[in-house]
Amino acid sequence: MTAPFFDVRNKGFGPRTPVADVFKLLDARVASLPAEAVSLGEAAGRVLAGSVTAAVNIPGFARAAMDGFAVRAADARIDNPLSLVGESLPGRPFAGTVATGQAVRIMTGAPLPNGADAVLRVEAAEEAEGRVRAQAAIAPGRDLGRIGEDVLAGSEVLAAGRRLRPQDVGMLAALGIGTIAAIRRPRVAILATGDELLPPGSKPEGCRIVDSNSPMLAALIHRDGGVPLPVRYVPDRLEAVRTALAEADADAIVVSGGSSVGKEDHAPRSLAELGELAVHGIAIRPAGPTGIGFLQCGMPVFLLPGNPVACLCGYDLFAGRAIRRMGGRDSDVPYRKDAAPLRTAIGSAKGRLDYVRVRLIDGEVEPIPGRGGSLLSTAVAADGFILVDAERESLPSGELVDVWLFDG
Amino acid sequence: MTAPFFDVRNKGFGPRTPVADVFKLLDARVASLPAEAVSLGEAAGRVLAGSVTAAVNIPGFARAAMDGFAVRAADARIDNPLSLVGESLPGRPFAGTVATGQAVRIMTGAPLPNGADAVLRVEAAEEAEGRVRAQAAIAPGRDLGRIGEDVLAGSEVLAAGRRLRPQDVGMLAALGIGTIAAIRRPRVAILATGDELLPPGSKPEGCRIVDSNSPMLAALIHRDGGVPLPVRYVPDRLEAVRTALAEADADAIVVSGGSSVGKEDHAPRSLAELGELAVHGIAIRPAGPTGIGFLQCGMPVFLLPGNPVACLCGYDLFAGRAIRRMGGRDSDVPYRKDAAPLRTAIGSAKGRLDYVRVRLIDGEVEPIPGRGGSLLSTAVAADGFILVDAERESLPSGELVDVWLFDG
Repeated sequence: MTAPFFDVRNKGFGPRTPVADVFKLLDARVASLPAEAVSLGEAAGRVLAGSVTAAVNIPGFARAAMDGFAVRAADARIDNPLSLVGESLPGRPFAGTVATGQAVRIMTGAPLPNGADAVLRVEAAEEAEGRVRAQAAIAPGRDLGRIGEDVLAGSEVLAAGRRLRPQDVGMLAALGIGTIAAIRRPRVAILATGDELLPPGSKPEGCRIVDSNSPMLAALIHRDGGVPLPVRYVPDRLEAVRTALAEADADAIVVSGGSSVGKEDHAPRSLAELGELAVHGIAIRPAGPTGIGFLQCGMPVFLLPGNPVACLCGYDLFAGRAIRRMGGRDSDVPYRKDAAPLRTAIGSAKGRLDYVRVRLIDGEVEPIPGRGGSLLSTAVAADGFILVDAERESLPSGELVDVWLFDG
Repeated sequence: MTAPFFDVRNKGFGPRTPVADVFKLLDARVASLPAEAVSLGEAAGRVLAGSVTAAVNIPGFARAAMDGFAVRAADARIDNPLSLVGESLPGRPFAGTVATGQAVRIMTGAPLPNGADAVLRVEAAEEAEGRVRAQAAIAPGRDLGRIGEDVLAGSEVLAAGRRLRPQDVGMLAALGIGTIAAIRRPRVAILATGDELLPPGSKPEGCRIVDSNSPMLAALIHRDGGVPLPVRYVPDRLEAVRTALAEADADAIVVSGGSSVGKEDHAPRSLAELGELAVHGIAIRPAGPTGIGFLQCGMPVFLLPGNPVACLCGYDLFAGRAIRRMGGRDSDVPYRKDAAPLRTAIGSAKGRLDYVRVRLIDGEVEPIPGRGGSLLSTAVAADGFILVDAERESLPSGELVDVWLFDG
């Protein structure tokens, strides 16, 4: 008879670490990665490693803000017909100077010719036979865009830590910037343990099931700005798990399965032997059997439960937090939070946070039956989740709760 | 002297199309694209073209929901020591049958052996010298996961139109699905007009400016699920614009610049000649000089203003709406909407929707000065925008308004 595969000394985990303490640990020990050069075409969604200061004025020249005529404002009088002496188009300026009594046709965005100090709008002018008359007086500076009116050279345009929006990318282009310094995307190794697992794309067969956690984790890592590395399947043997952990060439590791205290749960022991198992067992359901530790140079390692909802929950709250931090993003789960009343009372064990999948029905929160971690369909059917505080034993119907929404 | 480049007949646009009518036009004439096969590794974020029905039960076998012992429930009595005859691990089932008086050590997720009808949890058992005793009676079915408890074969798991979440991808893998039918991503041609434009990566020089719209549009198209094609720079000549429109091999086209009624605005005439210019001039500021039409097979074409904020606004509301629809996504702008009170009164011209960039300050909405379309810095500095209804001439301080937020 082999030794029992569960921990007979304490029949499970000892005291579990509160979720808030895990957050503190991660926030203290996981920092953002160094910068790398990223071309403008790849810059949207990336996080700036440093601030961006304008090296040039935008615009770099006075320009027309409207279609019309570049004139000297003092000339704009109804009784003063002006000679039309040329035109200024964007990129094709009028080469001469506008003298008293002259006008130059100008298009929005085109450079203001020398000599002119205002734009007479086309709809405020009368034009006939090469002469232009203003219908009313205008002030100097009228309908001009002045140098630097959009951006002044020397000003800070984007702050360090900014996650670049499409319009930011446009602004960087306008400033003459073709490459930015962005925080490097964390490369995350995915180790899947479980001899029962078939790789995605296989059909489930007999008592073998298809690995659902690795493709889910790859999508989660990608969503959080990380680069998921090709999945490595690791046999349920201590040496194999230890070797896979030691060999991973990555910024972080997530291990799926084998995270608990049973005989087949080799990851915690391997991590403790190779580096540090800082947390094992967290006061949360269903991701309780999660381990967190560090390898050389502080590389974080997350031992996630094999049960798919527990894996999802453990990723989103813990592994994802680290990956988001490494990439310079907001640490919090990237789900929109709404407040809504409970439609049904919820019971919850005291002493652990409860991650409850819920549906939103007519603006009310309805828990989905099946609180454990084994039924992935509950997370597929859910609109989101609520977190029931460790101190609460139940929430009454009607209580306003925070809901994190999986979509949008 | 060349002909004037603005439209002297009507000095600008005629009656502008209301925004709601543009939405109706797009919703009537732009449909989602056909399906394509997508592998699971690329499936997250894609939109399902059809529903997905389970071909198998999950799990396909009865399994242990806890670590413990597979037994016959009737045997679970404190006075009835059971013989431990083997073990069942995930993927490595117990090959024999559990007879009366026998127990098989079993791990969470492992197949329930023949003969057994319940799991005695490890913490509810005493084990010594190859014998196991239950501390209390258990019912048949206790701590078992039954066949199909997660997903029943034949049931619909994901509906057509679903944008796949990470957990959906996991579910598809578990069901034995390696490829899905997803709505094809629209391929969008970007034509940049404007002889004054230098390509991104250049430094602005003299009266030439760097193209900021194309990289912004590429990022917007990508965000909305489209595939931006390499930017094509088109000279400000009618034939060149017409040729570029005619030659574009894409599902949709966005043209940046030259969209208005001036002499250099060749895109509207080109589109009208090649196909249909359905809308020219929209009752919105600053994206008023926007054109919308269709080429062969109903391919939508968007003529966006060259002014960068007008381009952003015109893309988000009109071009993006079509691209999102083609890809099977929600038509609405993909920004989170919040309600907040105005910090300052806002004036607004009647008869057109006003797209006002705003900051959120202490939970209040503060408009950013500079309402026109030429200052991209206003969209960089903004937290989001509000839309002031065409019927309103002003909004008083304190009024609760909808704010669309650029981030998150």
